[in-house]
Amino acid sequence: MMSASAGQRGCTVGIAGFGTVGQAVARILSTGTHPGLRLTHVCNRNIARKKVDWVAPDVVWTESFDDLLDSPVDVVVELIGGLSPAREWIERALMAGKSVVTANKQVIAHAGPQLMTQAGQQGRHLLFEAAVAGGIPIVRALRDGVSGDRLYRIQGILNGTCNYILTRMEREQVSFAHALAEAQRLGYAEADPTADVDGFDAQAKLAILIGVGLGCAVRVEDIPQRSIASIAAVDFLYATRLGCVIRQVARAELVPETGGIRAAVSPALVPDTSALGRVEGSQNIVVVDGEYGGETAFSGFGAGGEPTAVAVVSDLLGIARRTPVMVDAAYQMAGEPQPVTREFTAPHYIRFMVADRPGIIAGLADVFSRHGVNVDAVLQEPGWSKAELPFVMTLDECSSGAVTAALADIDGFDFHVRPPFWLPMLTRGKKRA
Amino acid sequence: MMSASAGQRGCTVGIAGFGTVGQAVARILSTGTHPGLRLTHVCNRNIARKKVDWVAPDVVWTESFDDLLDSPVDVVVELIGGLSPAREWIERALMAGKSVVTANKQVIAHAGPQLMTQAGQQGRHLLFEAAVAGGIPIVRALRDGVSGDRLYRIQGILNGTCNYILTRMEREQVSFAHALAEAQRLGYAEADPTADVDGFDAQAKLAILIGVGLGCAVRVEDIPQRSIASIAAVDFLYATRLGCVIRQVARAELVPETGGIRAAVSPALVPDTSALGRVEGSQNIVVVDGEYGGETAFSGFGAGGEPTAVAVVSDLLGIARRTPVMVDAAYQMAGEPQPVTREFTAPHYIRFMVADRPGIIAGLADVFSRHGVNVDAVLQEPGWSKAELPFVMTLDECSSGAVTAALADIDGFDFHVRPPFWLPMLTRGKKRA
Repeated sequence: MMSASAGQRGCTVGIAGFGTVGQAVARILSTGTHPGLRLTHVCNRNIARKKVDWVAPDVVWTESFDDLLDSPVDVVVELIGGLSPAREWIERALMAGKSVVTANKQVIAHAGPQLMTQAGQQGRHLLFEAAVAGGIPIVRALRDGVSGDRLYRIQGILNGTCNYILTRMEREQVSFAHALAEAQRLGYAEADPTADVDGFDAQAKLAILIGVGLGCAVRVEDIPQRSIASIAAVDFLYATRLGCVIRQVARAELVPETGGIRAAVSPALVPDTSALGRVEGSQNIVVVDGEYGGETAFSGFGAGGEPTAVAVVSDLLGIARRTPVMVDAAYQMAGEPQPVTREFTAPHYIRFMVADRPGIIAGLADVFSRHGVNVDAVLQEPGWSKAELPFVMTLDECSSGAVTAALADIDGFDFHVRPPFWLPMLTRGKKRA
Repeated sequence: MMSASAGQRGCTVGIAGFGTVGQAVARILSTGTHPGLRLTHVCNRNIARKKVDWVAPDVVWTESFDDLLDSPVDVVVELIGGLSPAREWIERALMAGKSVVTANKQVIAHAGPQLMTQAGQQGRHLLFEAAVAGGIPIVRALRDGVSGDRLYRIQGILNGTCNYILTRMEREQVSFAHALAEAQRLGYAEADPTADVDGFDAQAKLAILIGVGLGCAVRVEDIPQRSIASIAAVDFLYATRLGCVIRQVARAELVPETGGIRAAVSPALVPDTSALGRVEGSQNIVVVDGEYGGETAFSGFGAGGEPTAVAVVSDLLGIARRTPVMVDAAYQMAGEPQPVTREFTAPHYIRFMVADRPGIIAGLADVFSRHGVNVDAVLQEPGWSKAELPFVMTLDECSSGAVTAALADIDGFDFHVRPPFWLPMLTRGKKRA
């Protein structure tokens, strides 16, 4: 896979993108812990301001990606992020005979199968452990560790920013806007938080997990994603009453009838004692269910320079040891995109905010009944203004489609002060029959 | 690594030991999920009573291990357990040009480095994911997934029988003897429960994790192990008062000063909200701390036929994909056994059972003080007989050596109805400076 001399001289590495993760990778490579890996090139815009004195003095600093391609480096580490030009850079690196390690979830989610096919044709590696859940070695766990099982469900908390915001809202009883501003001030959220809070980040990561873990290619944009921005502080109060917390959950399961996938990224109520419910702050978790192995969980730091760098360096070591893994990954992720079913069946939580008057519950119950949905309970905490009264209905297990159809009808009532807000309530998940 | 034709005809597999795990492996191999793996031989004593009709009709059933060695099988799956003759069988299989997959913790813990060196010399694989924590792919996670990190601590709940007994004692407030009998009746504990409850099972598994994760060979018998049999129902009551639960914890950390290892298998108090404290019933967990990746946790079913079979089949798939992993594992586990430091520093819990009279606390405090140990608190629940009064002292952080030395002195007092019982109190564990 590598040039014949690579074993002797060590595997040489060029980093493209010298931000937080790139610098953390360079630091680990500069400790001497991994003598088989040698950093030789760093490529970044405005390279002069990026230079550091703690790497080997013979490291080449460059602003030109072509310099990496023309160099004898064995592996290009792509850490520039985003779809373009990252995808082209990865393609050019593979064509130039380099292996590639990337932390780029968007490129892998959108073009993983094609790029891995290309890597296979070139006899080169394309590894991406860092693209999902940072320091948690979930890609390898799915591809190798539990490969003997037949997985049928993957659930995860894949976005540390959302989890940080939601756990702050829960503990401090503050609004989404307040928690977001705090997360931005502390550097846990971007100035433009859309990718995180609206679920696009988790959507890309889930697409990758579906490919690697369920052996199914899907189009990223086919996975429905809902924002956490509509969650109100009062929802955490009612969640607590229900023994739950609110988390942004990415989930996917095989649909045996169609051979396709059911998937969604959405805020959800999860039991506070569940594996998902106990993940706090910026931590990540991935829980997989297999036909033979049952439920297995992997948790840790899903973001941050150093944990992500661990994933990158572990991939580099995999290449240095010449583990021919990428061909298998290509097989698993290749193939035509499968249809994505967007409907999940679950109990549901609906929070209303109304100008109170007699007959509201009866009117709502009537609509749900017409849609074949059973109301399980009505919860109303005391102490709120009648003019803007929040209350909650929980629904017995029903499809998300039935819920949204009923809510479309319910929208016509004149008592709403704010639109009703619904969340699925995830239980541990039944074992597949 | 395999014969040239193996890729075409699939990787052929012979199972030695057709008990619960062996049968589960055969079931998975008979589903057609993994076309690259083909079961061709099953070896067991009294093979006639073992024959099943759901494997391929051309599978060879034999009582002679030599039949496996003389056959063209690519991989021997060793599932007979115990040190002998399993070790000799593995050696003979490697010498006969077979790769070996084993679930045998004792053989790997005692002879792993030598066997892996032998496998390397033969150009064959020796994989053992199933030897530790059943279906949790922890061996691969340590060897590959977080290989880019520098791990300095591993903590785990590695014995499902102990965890089942302890969680039953906690929930039902029953004695150890009662919970053990129940576990035996349900098949969770062996007729002779010594290996589980006295910690020898976890000791062997911890030795393997130390080798793979901390890169350090240790002698199994150098790891101190304490039984859970001395834990009384009242200890769970006091643990609850302290916000803790009691778990059998296997733990190891690098000792930077000596280059060695500090390790122990012992019941301990752990916070009920901690990763270790939340593992219930027969589940397992492994929590690793790395210099860069922080804390990463892996949990799932640590025993049982099917989860363990997933680990075996995942190893078989690794061999079928010709992942040359065993050489790395050999490097990591080889080398001279390092010294094992048996002393941990921690806050401690001491439960006394006394015939009450004035001056007991003062006498105890005086002894602890002479040993340089600070008493943190005294807890005494009301409602017990003065003739057999349980109470608890908690000690500030101190070495386990100081505790046992003080208790040796305390043994001389005449007020004991039962010998004092001590446990370390594990907090999350400080990040190494």
